[in-house]
Amino acid sequence: MTPSGHDVLRARERIADLIHRTPALTCSTLDRMTGASVVFKCENFQKTGSFKFRGACNAVASLEPEERSRGVLTHSSGNYAQALALAAQIHHVLAYVVMPETAPDVKVQATAGYGAQITLCPPTHQGRHDTAERIRKEAGAVFLDSHDDPRVFTGQGTACLELIEEVGELDLILAPVGGGGLISGTLLVAKHLIPGVRVIGCEPTGADDAARGLARGERIVDFTPTTIADGLRTPLGENTFEIIRQRIDDLIVIPEDEILPAMQFIWERMKIVIEPSSAVAVAPLLSGALETKGQRIGVILSGGNVDLSAFFRSLNIPH
Amino acid sequence: MTPSGHDVLRARERIADLIHRTPALTCSTLDRMTGASVVFKCENFQKTGSFKFRGACNAVASLEPEERSRGVLTHSSGNYAQALALAAQIHHVLAYVVMPETAPDVKVQATAGYGAQITLCPPTHQGRHDTAERIRKEAGAVFLDSHDDPRVFTGQGTACLELIEEVGELDLILAPVGGGGLISGTLLVAKHLIPGVRVIGCEPTGADDAARGLARGERIVDFTPTTIADGLRTPLGENTFEIIRQRIDDLIVIPEDEILPAMQFIWERMKIVIEPSSAVAVAPLLSGALETKGQRIGVILSGGNVDLSAFFRSLNIPH
Repeated sequence: MTPSGHDVLRARERIADLIHRTPALTCSTLDRMTGASVVFKCENFQKTGSFKFRGACNAVASLEPEERSRGVLTHSSGNYAQALALAAQIHHVLAYVVMPETAPDVKVQATAGYGAQITLCPPTHQGRHDTAERIRKEAGAVFLDSHDDPRVFTGQGTACLELIEEVGELDLILAPVGGGGLISGTLLVAKHLIPGVRVIGCEPTGADDAARGLARGERIVDFTPTTIADGLRTPLGENTFEIIRQRIDDLIVIPEDEILPAMQFIWERMKIVIEPSSAVAVAPLLSGALETKGQRIGVILSGGNVDLSAFFRSLNIPH
Repeated sequence: MTPSGHDVLRARERIADLIHRTPALTCSTLDRMTGASVVFKCENFQKTGSFKFRGACNAVASLEPEERSRGVLTHSSGNYAQALALAAQIHHVLAYVVMPETAPDVKVQATAGYGAQITLCPPTHQGRHDTAERIRKEAGAVFLDSHDDPRVFTGQGTACLELIEEVGELDLILAPVGGGGLISGTLLVAKHLIPGVRVIGCEPTGADDAARGLARGERIVDFTPTTIADGLRTPLGENTFEIIRQRIDDLIVIPEDEILPAMQFIWERMKIVIEPSSAVAVAPLLSGALETKGQRIGVILSGGNVDLSAFFRSLNIPH
């Protein structure tokens, strides 16, 4: 059965008490620059630092008792690993997380810290798949894909649902596109609640598989991402490709050299830490790529997990 | 007449419509670590990026019409320059700001961007004083000290006032100590509203003039600060020294090597950008220097103006 906006509403019932209802913030400088009224949904303040926790939480909460007893399983190098680990921990479910050997130690530690059982694997698609498949067979755990499982992406749509509840009518919603989970959940709920709203997905040139796939009419899975936006290196899934194909108003491809300036703008002006993937949905507001004048615009800031250790090492202590 | 908590309440009436009512945020990880319930008053989200705007705004709003027509004047290398410039702009008052030649260009530009008339001067106490004195005589402008003017520090106390209104009873309030304006305003209003509350000032070893001055019984003005907390390099003023001497419960001196780790902790865990001066009031919660168990603790995060350009230059764009 095709997921709908109703599934996002149901997901919210399931997870409302478990997630942070993140703030919606504005930036008067940006409003002046764009002539628009822009509201940012701040999933960088979400538990585990990204929107991924919403989907993971809804997926685990949706399991049957028998499934819970078998545990949950995924592979992830990033935010979803921590998100699923914490969602499982909250529900007293065992989590198996396959992570590439190249994953930053801090992410492995954080995931383990939520009680997940980590298995390291070769840093390839095949390596991740084979290792997860082995664990699935051995432990019988339920595999929960990071973006293409409907329980996951309808949960992720709850960020946009909260945004619309808080600010009301919007003319335009921007969200980044990686595996397509966030934009799919956003599309389902936004078009359900505001029939006339335009939803535009933003992806970087270094991982523009969604734009190329839509133009070609088929999903592109075989590509090597080269983007700094590490959360957006995943290809679309089968479900998310279909939802995007049917419902999206437009996809904007963001030049790589616009990502860090957009990220710096938000850090400096709004004093919040966002990750490069979030900045991809901010960039078109700064570059003039969009007609913004007089528009009410919502932007989903996907997360704030950035490795800050090099920066803090570089700051000198006087003596 | 000695300023009191009532003056902070009156300041709030004056500036409530002009300032941001900044959020009070919590951090569950920190609460677990400390066994306390800690609330952060986030002045990094204040206009111009720091609490300084509150004091500047109250000072300009307090001027007589005749004084307004003469303009306002100060010297500052940092946050107060921008704060007074914007406060004056909002009130349609001319601002003269003396800045040392060594001030970062970005701060000079930001101050000029608020319409202030900038005069660069030699980067010494004497150079700043002499240049400001010359302008005062020539233009007749009203000098507004960054921390020792009662109109300034009672305005700065409104941050703590809002915090107490929002969270209610507190056992302990922590704030950084530089020129003493923030802690003085905080002391006035906190002791007025919560007679039993303890207020502790935090200053870095590299600028521990308040702790040494209190121990000696006289204000120390002749010292060379060596702290990374650039907002705390100012000596106490005559008024702020007196208020602190009479009312403070304790001063904690924070080792320099605890400042950046505390700052990194807040960036990583709370996803907000705070400056080193703010981190000085966070450090004692992480180091175990304070008995925190079971306490309701308020922390004033003074600002979020950090030069991020080197960090963003260091992030590589893949190609």
